[in-house]
Amino acid sequence: MDLTRLGPEQLAVEAERLLKEYEDLSAQKLALDLTRGKPSPEQLDLSNGLESLPGEGDIRAADGTDVRNYGGGLAGLPELREIYSGFLRVPAKQLMAHDNSSLALMHDAVIHAMMFPLPGGQARWADTPGGAAFLCPVPGYDRHFSICQKFGIEMIPVPMTPDGPDLDVAERLAAEDPRIKGMWCVPKYSNPTGAIYSEETVRRLAALPAAAPDFRLFWDDAYAVHHLTDEAVPSAPILEVCEAAGHPDRVFVFGSTSKVTVAGAGVAFLGSSPANLAWLQGHLAKRTIGPDKINQLRHVRFLRDAAGVEALMAAHRRILEPKFAAVDTVLEEGLGGSGVATWTKPRGGYFVSLDVLDGCAAEVVRLAAAAGIALTPAGATFPGGHDPRDRNIRLAPTFPGLDSLEKAMRGVVTCVLLAAVSKLREEPVI
Amino acid sequence: MDLTRLGPEQLAVEAERLLKEYEDLSAQKLALDLTRGKPSPEQLDLSNGLESLPGEGDIRAADGTDVRNYGGGLAGLPELREIYSGFLRVPAKQLMAHDNSSLALMHDAVIHAMMFPLPGGQARWADTPGGAAFLCPVPGYDRHFSICQKFGIEMIPVPMTPDGPDLDVAERLAAEDPRIKGMWCVPKYSNPTGAIYSEETVRRLAALPAAAPDFRLFWDDAYAVHHLTDEAVPSAPILEVCEAAGHPDRVFVFGSTSKVTVAGAGVAFLGSSPANLAWLQGHLAKRTIGPDKINQLRHVRFLRDAAGVEALMAAHRRILEPKFAAVDTVLEEGLGGSGVATWTKPRGGYFVSLDVLDGCAAEVVRLAAAAGIALTPAGATFPGGHDPRDRNIRLAPTFPGLDSLEKAMRGVVTCVLLAAVSKLREEPVI
Repeated sequence: MDLTRLGPEQLAVEAERLLKEYEDLSAQKLALDLTRGKPSPEQLDLSNGLESLPGEGDIRAADGTDVRNYGGGLAGLPELREIYSGFLRVPAKQLMAHDNSSLALMHDAVIHAMMFPLPGGQARWADTPGGAAFLCPVPGYDRHFSICQKFGIEMIPVPMTPDGPDLDVAERLAAEDPRIKGMWCVPKYSNPTGAIYSEETVRRLAALPAAAPDFRLFWDDAYAVHHLTDEAVPSAPILEVCEAAGHPDRVFVFGSTSKVTVAGAGVAFLGSSPANLAWLQGHLAKRTIGPDKINQLRHVRFLRDAAGVEALMAAHRRILEPKFAAVDTVLEEGLGGSGVATWTKPRGGYFVSLDVLDGCAAEVVRLAAAAGIALTPAGATFPGGHDPRDRNIRLAPTFPGLDSLEKAMRGVVTCVLLAAVSKLREEPVI
Repeated sequence: MDLTRLGPEQLAVEAERLLKEYEDLSAQKLALDLTRGKPSPEQLDLSNGLESLPGEGDIRAADGTDVRNYGGGLAGLPELREIYSGFLRVPAKQLMAHDNSSLALMHDAVIHAMMFPLPGGQARWADTPGGAAFLCPVPGYDRHFSICQKFGIEMIPVPMTPDGPDLDVAERLAAEDPRIKGMWCVPKYSNPTGAIYSEETVRRLAALPAAAPDFRLFWDDAYAVHHLTDEAVPSAPILEVCEAAGHPDRVFVFGSTSKVTVAGAGVAFLGSSPANLAWLQGHLAKRTIGPDKINQLRHVRFLRDAAGVEALMAAHRRILEPKFAAVDTVLEEGLGGSGVATWTKPRGGYFVSLDVLDGCAAEVVRLAAAAGIALTPAGATFPGGHDPRDRNIRLAPTFPGLDSLEKAMRGVVTCVLLAAVSKLREEPVI
């Protein structure tokens, strides 16, 4: 039933029915959480061997380094970088393996660019006349936006398409405004839409005629190996494509094992050009003697090789695919043909992006919260937490069990319909 | 034989003898390294159980948190903070346990103070008229100085005494210059002199009449539990003393397990006032979701409690005490009464500080290097790598085996005497 085509009387009937449904929902006193992209305990159990590795006496990296001691440099264990090199499409010698957080590597790249000129740059970003700015594909990842906000970097939204950010917009903006120093990109199974950057998108980003000589792509390949279909889309070789486009220093590539092994105690990666790496490591060398090499050896022992990563991710997929299928089924049953919602069917990653009727997202989140279902705050996927159309909601289906997830999603459906009917009747139902 | 009292002919004889000795030394083609304060493999072996902890299935912190997942906040596991609280004299609730590097915590405290006003501060340190400055007790720790250098913070030397920095100097400087925003302190078994800040020093630092309202002590209690004698000097309760002096936000306390368990994969601590912690964690929350909690649980399981730390440190002492004794014995035999060298007899920590004849340190390091003995570069213990008297050399006796250490130290003695004789004769011997 397409709600947008109903007359006032039919809407009134629907409103009454939905109100009753919402009261039943509230009576269940649920306490369900779809807010963050956390792996479930069942997924974490897939890496259960990790906690007793590398094992007593196993203390040597392949090159003989005693991983327990200081030393060995900032780049991390070559054998671990080798395992991830193919997935992130960065030569192992240009890939560094650091601590447990790729977010920290992004933050530290930005904070150092604020304070020290990048290769090719004439000044520190902090000294940009008018203030530095970033292009932010929307909807996007709130923690990316928080980094910009922290440093007063203006965020300029660029609409997402199923093929990645709208390049006509990005090209025009970057070409005319030298304040634009960077762009956040989640190139595959994008957070939250699941979009996969097309080959043309990748090529145009590499060739982007940026006015700023120190423009950088912050290429957060967080879901490089996180497939939900047999397609197993490979990551784009952005470093190579940038080189070919004459912009060898354009990109910082990020990745991690956070949603491969363990979310809080994995290993993060940063890949870039030799010049960028020398710049960053030169600054980071004043910060730390080096990353936790035992944890890196632990990961080498556990993952073994690229095939080991793939086998582990196949096991993750067996847990996650039914959850994503359940979300789609409940949404289709409840909202299909309703005319008040569209949603994504991601081929990988951690999220489903739900667009409700314009002006209804905050109300849906409010209704859901009151009924015991925690959703990511409306607007979180936009810079400054402001969704100009108030319609996008990020759903994170990975953490709850399948039953809880289905229950939560049925509740979300009720809230979406209830908010839509209120909007269409131009009066609050509740 | 006091070289400084010899006449020209006697000096010539000595020079000839020493030259022969140095040639014999060179002929041994040694490859020994006394540069950095690294634990020896034997010390690292004391924590051999660590590599297989926490063990499969042991995934819960005391409060039930699944340590494998995101979440749990920035402060780290309460039970680990509890273990260290007494050693660092910081209440567990004001102590955060972070990643593997206390240097990184110092760096991040400074970088954030450069960019965001501290509690009590009216402006960011970066906006200090004339540029921010730090008081730097000398000789001191080169990595502290590197952080200042990185951010263009002027380093103002303050002479060390056996009771800590010369407070008459520090008080005068801090009182008259509002550019002085901080001071590096290694309060116990200081790097490199082994000095222990007296109660009076601690009290006067807490009460220091700093002109800058956002003045901070960077209290690097790196050697809190690293005793070499039965005295086992407890750490000063600096946080409490600052509070009592009316400066509750004055100090950041740092510590780590780097030289307790494993040097590259331990846990670092930062303790401070509630206001400072809220300020720092507010900024760090944009950088990372949290520290590696599995490694913290691993340390809880391995150390168990404060008594566990003390037992482990007693075992370290059994390895280290003979090494420090050997250094003192060789120096005493070779340089005692020579009039050209003095050195410290630390009661804990990782270093011996050797002062040679003024103007000779760089030459000693050069001679030693040419003979296959790597020493910390002369000047490294001073801001900018410049020792105005060119006399201080930091000896790090922990890493080499006892035999190698004795061999290296005998070589150092030869180099010290040779450089001294050259200096006294006012002509190079070699």
